[in-house]
Amino acid sequence: MDQVFDDTFYMKKALDEAQIALEKGEVPVGVVVVAKNTVIARAHNLTEALIDVTAHAEMQAITAAANTIGGKYLHECTLYVTLEPCSMCAGALYWSQISRVVFAASDPKRGYREQGTILHPKTAVSFGVLANEASALLHRFFQQKRD
Amino acid sequence: MDQVFDDTFYMKKALDEAQIALEKGEVPVGVVVVAKNTVIARAHNLTEALIDVTAHAEMQAITAAANTIGGKYLHECTLYVTLEPCSMCAGALYWSQISRVVFAASDPKRGYREQGTILHPKTAVSFGVLANEASALLHRFFQQKRD
Repeated sequence: MDQVFDDTFYMKKALDEAQIALEKGEVPVGVVVVAKNTVIARAHNLTEALIDVTAHAEMQAITAAANTIGGKYLHECTLYVTLEPCSMCAGALYWSQISRVVFAASDPKRGYREQGTILHPKTAVSFGVLANEASALLHRFFQQKRD
Repeated sequence: MDQVFDDTFYMKKALDEAQIALEKGEVPVGVVVVAKNTVIARAHNLTEALIDVTAHAEMQAITAAANTIGGKYLHECTLYVTLEPCSMCAGALYWSQISRVVFAASDPKRGYREQGTILHPKTAVSFGVLANEASALLHRFFQQKRD
């Protein structure tokens, strides 16, 4: 029997969002935000559709989650994202004081760790969950762009 | 005769935005984005009103400027902001590839320089323009909060 409420379960939902982004011609990154075993926000990258560099999946999901909660702090929430957040998104996560961030694939070039940006000291981080699946979507996108 | 199109001129407009934020009970930070001597976007911090940690003045102004331009890159634009950007906003400015950022007051605690976040290599930076005026607004806000 599946353990339906583990990190893999929620990361699959984030991957579903990334898949939607791919089908729209966006860099395929997806996010879900979970509180008390419930998905309270989901989003995918929309920088091309919205013509807006700030429209990363995480940014939209942070805004949507705060809207659901009715408060700007994401205490007791976990954000699942298919790619390591960039500095902008890490900075937004910092302000949100989110409890936990789980990302799938690492981003050795534009990821917040390489860029030196810090998360909030209250935020726990895990990574590597379904990293191969998340990377495969990104490779497929960039391969399509080259062809 | 005044030199109306210098940095002080535009930073005064950013201070006007910060003043509006103060009157709304928001942390008083204001922004204008200028292209070809024209203000193409203006914004002030709205994190309390929107219940959204991502609603910093810079984030809104980047989105608005891109909307005005009809493209997501802010090449040949200058963003004037009354306080040194945080990591989130610096990260957004990075993605925008903006030509120039001018900030008034430094933020030794939450500013992007202290946090280690980098701007785009194409982005020139100036600071200190009307820094005392910008700091005075911030002090006034935090004094009111304490009283």
